[in-house]
Amino acid sequence: MAGKIGLNITQICLPRECTEDEIIEEVLKLNEDPRVHGVYLHLPPASLTSRVLNTLRPEKDVDGVSDLNVGRLVRGDMSQGFTPPLANAVMELLARHGEQSPIQNHGREMSGVGPLTAALRMRNVVQSSSRWAQGQQYRPWTLRSLKLQPLSPVPSDIEISRAQTPKPVDQLAQEIGLLQEETEAYGRTKAKVRLSLLDRLREQPDGKYVLVAGITPTPLGEGKSTVVIGLVQALSAHLKLNSFACLRQPSQGPTFGVKGGAAGGGYAQVIPMEEFNLHLTGDIHAITAANNLVAAAIDARMLHEATQTDKALYSRLVPSVNGVRRFSPIQIARLCRLGISEIDPRALTPQEVSSFVRLDLDPAKVTWQRGRTLYNQLFPPPIFQPPHMIAVASEIMAILALADGLGDMKTRLGRMVVGSSRSGQPITAEDLGVSGALAVLMKDAIKPTLMQTLEGSPVFVHAGPFANIAHGNSSVLADKLALKLVGEDGFVVTEAGFGADIGMEKFFNIKCRASGLRPNVVVLVATVRALKMHGGGPNVSAGSPLPREYIDENLSLVTKGCSSNLRKQIQIAHLFGVPVVVALNVFKTDTQAEIDLVCQMAKESGAADAVPCHHWARGGRGSVDLAQAVKQASSQPSHFQFLYSQETPIVEKIRMIAQKVYGADDIELSPEAQAKIDYYNQQGYGKLPICMAKTHLSLSHLPEKKGTPTGFTLPIRDIRASIGAGFIYPLVGTMSTMPGLPTRPCFYDIDLDPVTEEITGLF
Amino acid sequence: MAGKIGLNITQICLPRECTEDEIIEEVLKLNEDPRVHGVYLHLPPASLTSRVLNTLRPEKDVDGVSDLNVGRLVRGDMSQGFTPPLANAVMELLARHGEQSPIQNHGREMSGVGPLTAALRMRNVVQSSSRWAQGQQYRPWTLRSLKLQPLSPVPSDIEISRAQTPKPVDQLAQEIGLLQEETEAYGRTKAKVRLSLLDRLREQPDGKYVLVAGITPTPLGEGKSTVVIGLVQALSAHLKLNSFACLRQPSQGPTFGVKGGAAGGGYAQVIPMEEFNLHLTGDIHAITAANNLVAAAIDARMLHEATQTDKALYSRLVPSVNGVRRFSPIQIARLCRLGISEIDPRALTPQEVSSFVRLDLDPAKVTWQRGRTLYNQLFPPPIFQPPHMIAVASEIMAILALADGLGDMKTRLGRMVVGSSRSGQPITAEDLGVSGALAVLMKDAIKPTLMQTLEGSPVFVHAGPFANIAHGNSSVLADKLALKLVGEDGFVVTEAGFGADIGMEKFFNIKCRASGLRPNVVVLVATVRALKMHGGGPNVSAGSPLPREYIDENLSLVTKGCSSNLRKQIQIAHLFGVPVVVALNVFKTDTQAEIDLVCQMAKESGAADAVPCHHWARGGRGSVDLAQAVKQASSQPSHFQFLYSQETPIVEKIRMIAQKVYGADDIELSPEAQAKIDYYNQQGYGKLPICMAKTHLSLSHLPEKKGTPTGFTLPIRDIRASIGAGFIYPLVGTMSTMPGLPTRPCFYDIDLDPVTEEITGLF
Repeated sequence: MAGKIGLNITQICLPRECTEDEIIEEVLKLNEDPRVHGVYLHLPPASLTSRVLNTLRPEKDVDGVSDLNVGRLVRGDMSQGFTPPLANAVMELLARHGEQSPIQNHGREMSGVGPLTAALRMRNVVQSSSRWAQGQQYRPWTLRSLKLQPLSPVPSDIEISRAQTPKPVDQLAQEIGLLQEETEAYGRTKAKVRLSLLDRLREQPDGKYVLVAGITPTPLGEGKSTVVIGLVQALSAHLKLNSFACLRQPSQGPTFGVKGGAAGGGYAQVIPMEEFNLHLTGDIHAITAANNLVAAAIDARMLHEATQTDKALYSRLVPSVNGVRRFSPIQIARLCRLGISEIDPRALTPQEVSSFVRLDLDPAKVTWQRGRTLYNQLFPPPIFQPPHMIAVASEIMAILALADGLGDMKTRLGRMVVGSSRSGQPITAEDLGVSGALAVLMKDAIKPTLMQTLEGSPVFVHAGPFANIAHGNSSVLADKLALKLVGEDGFVVTEAGFGADIGMEKFFNIKCRASGLRPNVVVLVATVRALKMHGGGPNVSAGSPLPREYIDENLSLVTKGCSSNLRKQIQIAHLFGVPVVVALNVFKTDTQAEIDLVCQMAKESGAADAVPCHHWARGGRGSVDLAQAVKQASSQPSHFQFLYSQETPIVEKIRMIAQKVYGADDIELSPEAQAKIDYYNQQGYGKLPICMAKTHLSLSHLPEKKGTPTGFTLPIRDIRASIGAGFIYPLVGTMSTMPGLPTRPCFYDIDLDPVTEEITGLF
Repeated sequence: MAGKIGLNITQICLPRECTEDEIIEEVLKLNEDPRVHGVYLHLPPASLTSRVLNTLRPEKDVDGVSDLNVGRLVRGDMSQGFTPPLANAVMELLARHGEQSPIQNHGREMSGVGPLTAALRMRNVVQSSSRWAQGQQYRPWTLRSLKLQPLSPVPSDIEISRAQTPKPVDQLAQEIGLLQEETEAYGRTKAKVRLSLLDRLREQPDGKYVLVAGITPTPLGEGKSTVVIGLVQALSAHLKLNSFACLRQPSQGPTFGVKGGAAGGGYAQVIPMEEFNLHLTGDIHAITAANNLVAAAIDARMLHEATQTDKALYSRLVPSVNGVRRFSPIQIARLCRLGISEIDPRALTPQEVSSFVRLDLDPAKVTWQRGRTLYNQLFPPPIFQPPHMIAVASEIMAILALADGLGDMKTRLGRMVVGSSRSGQPITAEDLGVSGALAVLMKDAIKPTLMQTLEGSPVFVHAGPFANIAHGNSSVLADKLALKLVGEDGFVVTEAGFGADIGMEKFFNIKCRASGLRPNVVVLVATVRALKMHGGGPNVSAGSPLPREYIDENLSLVTKGCSSNLRKQIQIAHLFGVPVVVALNVFKTDTQAEIDLVCQMAKESGAADAVPCHHWARGGRGSVDLAQAVKQASSQPSHFQFLYSQETPIVEKIRMIAQKVYGADDIELSPEAQAKIDYYNQQGYGKLPICMAKTHLSLSHLPEKKGTPTGFTLPIRDIRASIGAGFIYPLVGTMSTMPGLPTRPCFYDIDLDPVTEEITGLF
């Protein structure tokens, strides 16, 4: 009944009297048969029902609509095999006839089939076969590494970045196995990667999944991003293993404010760093636009509801077009939520009309905020300017980071709660009518951006949610794409913001829960500086010179730091059942005795390994030991488990995090927080995971408590929810969610030479 | 002394005892000699002084640093001519040795010259010669037109757009003579074009410059953009003339609010229309970010000045870095403006420190507004939300549209006045320290975006300043690039917003004054609908059905409309000495008698020609008559003149526009307006051109006065200034500068299919 023809493309060719069910049964069999890589529906037109067409798995569908003539023609050619000359001949034929849409030429009503149609179909077969071939096999990349000749002393980040010429991004894409149609170049050094890749590589096993987290940092940061980049440079350029870095897109607030660039540093950077730090491919701008579309829609709706009768609102919201009134799909969704099953606009009762047209938003309970790409100041009320937030803090950013695909993103966008009505009902973006427009604005942002490291290894830059009111991790989609691209023996290194108590905990409980991915290794970044601080060293603050304790050898402070904060953070990772490799990010002031001490104590505290890293000064070569250690640890079994189940009540989830992760005695809920929890339970949000908005400068809620604080009760000041993103975020203590600009922001030094077009002042 | 070698590349080769002045004299001669296309400086290292190197015109500089060996080697090969095999051999040699920077291998200290160096130099010669060759000759493009098969009835815009497959943008770029290194692709259908093109084609004569303006429109618009696109489709695809459309980038406010897309309509569109209407290449987002950086800098500065002493501010603004305090260049610029010549931070007097650190912005006189990509509502004060503006109304957008290059843009950005101090001094973006950072944010936005029409003709989309508080024209740079690309016999068609009384007047007096370009022809768009309205027909408003007068033939209304508004707008164009072609944008309800009447009366009113256009229904084929008429008119001499000289006092300039263009009896200045004029004169802004913010719905300030209003006095309510952009804008009457969203904004219908990724609801 089904005859094999060359290259495992199978045709179904049944007698006329077959029933639809029999055909479907045959299709289902072929769907499941791993030896069959493509199927023709070689059937009379009447048998090509939509049920039949829908049954065939798309990746096996060589040509959605087939017929006898073409089947024969193609079969004839196929017996010769898919040689390059044949493929070329097909392409040439197509070119001669002009590139017409295959759909136009595949109409079922066609009786005869000309050479063009045959060629089009053959092209489909060729493409389908080559897609299959590329999709199935793991192969080491033929990645061309960029040579690095580190200078000493290490020049500024922008000088290092500019001295290296990146590979053209289309070349990089080809090296890592992307098809031409899967990328969209943005200039010469950035490309968006299409999500269709996930379909193509569905059968490919994932690579190893490595998370880089850190101990509780000083306010100067401990270099997690540089560790990520250095590790991937070592894995790809030195160990010759397929590997990918997944990074967050930096916010322009820090770039122009305090922090400068975020593309790594020294000889572990993403290049060109200007591109990384500025507009990139516009994702954050798309978020700003989408965020502000919601804000504009709220304003407009409140104004119009305040000034119009139910009838006027209804006739404007559901206008008569050529004499016909119709609800739009987005409006029908709202009717459903209201429990109104009537979809004829003329048949609604006045009460139904009223509940349909009036969102009745309570101005005091609008929770949506206007977004911007830059910090604003937290001004006292008399000076102009209302609460704004930075775009990366928008729930839309958190959604981008957690979405699993276009459909999932759209659903989450529609589900976002923007405030509540005067009667206490949550009002969503879909109620406002903007969910489709939001998806349209975000349709390109959902594709991760491909860039490269200083040594030519691939990097995905995608999403950058805040690590306080959001989960602080790069996107699920970037990690998924990268895991498929590196293949079974490859490595994907991704990063969690803040210390492991925050970023890593959220990575496991929120991001891994959403994605279904399971990490193999945690790399925990430590510095002698931060360890000395935890061991009791004096305050470290940006802009002040470092006290002597941090410059001279001090083994006693290091010991105390290792036995407190480092040990605790290792234990936190072990709570989740994942092996830990400690990466000591070496500074030039660190002594060998200090370095050895940290590595020894880390291993005594349960780390699978602990190694010093010199990526900042030496690039990937300086991280080869770390790469070896990670490779070794990733071959150990990982017994990943969540800290809590979804079903655990909200208060219990918070308490578990506070006690098991932070080491608190208990939690203390403010009355506002308790009331919100009751409200969320009542609205059915109780199963969402928890995203703690806590300071990153201490395991406790008090930034000045270093080491491993004990004997404290964690105060929960308030609780908010990102229903679209899918988490509840308690505000712990006096955590500020919105920083401001300093007196002399970075922008004083940022400049552009109009002749050479070189940028100065980014660092 | 100078010996010619093949292909007009000349070397200078002087004896050692030559003086610098003698060498320079020789260089200057060769600079001016049109027969010499490239020059080697074939001199001993000691003679290669910077004066000598700077004297040589860059486009003749084959290789900045030359020497004997290479000279010989290259000459040897060059006697064979620059054959493709030679060029290929050079490239191959380079590839074998790795692509190294020519500069690295061109150090003057080199004594011997290996084959790689020789190859690098030869490549320079090859590139220089081929640039020269491409730059010098006008040639008709080998543009592949996209076939159009218009359907009847005309489908929706998005259906038409989607049914056409655009050419890959790199193919289009090649067809119109762009070099590969001159474009930066953004996906497959959009590319930014680098400004270096202007240098390469400096000697190329400009094409013909055609402005499309309109009569006073109805609120429904008269289709100026479709005329631009249809005309270019006709010129390029049907008359086979090089031609370019230059369009404004649409604001997302209209797209999601009332108007829908702005990519043209029917069979005269820019494709893909979704790309055109959404983020495009991020220029507007860059403007939003830049605009808000200024806002954030204002907020921060006011806060810090309010909370710190002079000394604290000074030590933060000019910090000690490694024991050294230094002013940044941007701070030295401020010192200059303050008349402080001291640049040692320790040497300033306390008074000088105080005037340096304190901008002392008066909160009541901050004129800078926060920008967003979308409309917000104009709310009465009790409801939240302060005055925001839409990003396209930002002065930064006006600067983008008027800038002549990167350096000019940076200067203008620094010059923007954001408010005034308590003592009345203007405070600029440079005073805030952000001018360099603004230029960095805008460095990509300054490059125009290349797209294509439905018939494959090239389109530049660049800048979209509002036509009320700004000048409403696309960018100077796009027009300049396009005029070079089309070459002497080609056509560039650009558009002015609103009616000719506003958009065209500003095009001449502001844009042409800034650019130095001179238009050859004005195309004045009229519709029977608008003419009937001016002839006394009933009100036309969006959302209401059209009254019968507009559907049935009514020659009397048409006659009155032609003899009033149409005649007046033709006369306005003649004020500037430019010939007019009237383009009647035909609707299906127009009768032949109406069409003939309009064309006849237009010619009687002084139009060089008047033709009906059917581009909406038929594409370029429907605009062939217009294309012929424009070609004919462009061969007439144009005697362009400005309406007023820069030296004319502000009040007089306003009066001249009011009387000569609008037909007012006189103007009436409010006391606020008069006070502002005095202030601007005192600050030295008196020579700036005028940008009237007047309703576009009437020649007068009263939207309901149709036809040719007379006997009115134009009230000037207030006056503002965009010092960076370089114009002063009087607010006429009660003109609103910020529209809001309707009850049922377009976004209700905008949706994305998550599987096919198709967008619906854009129209």
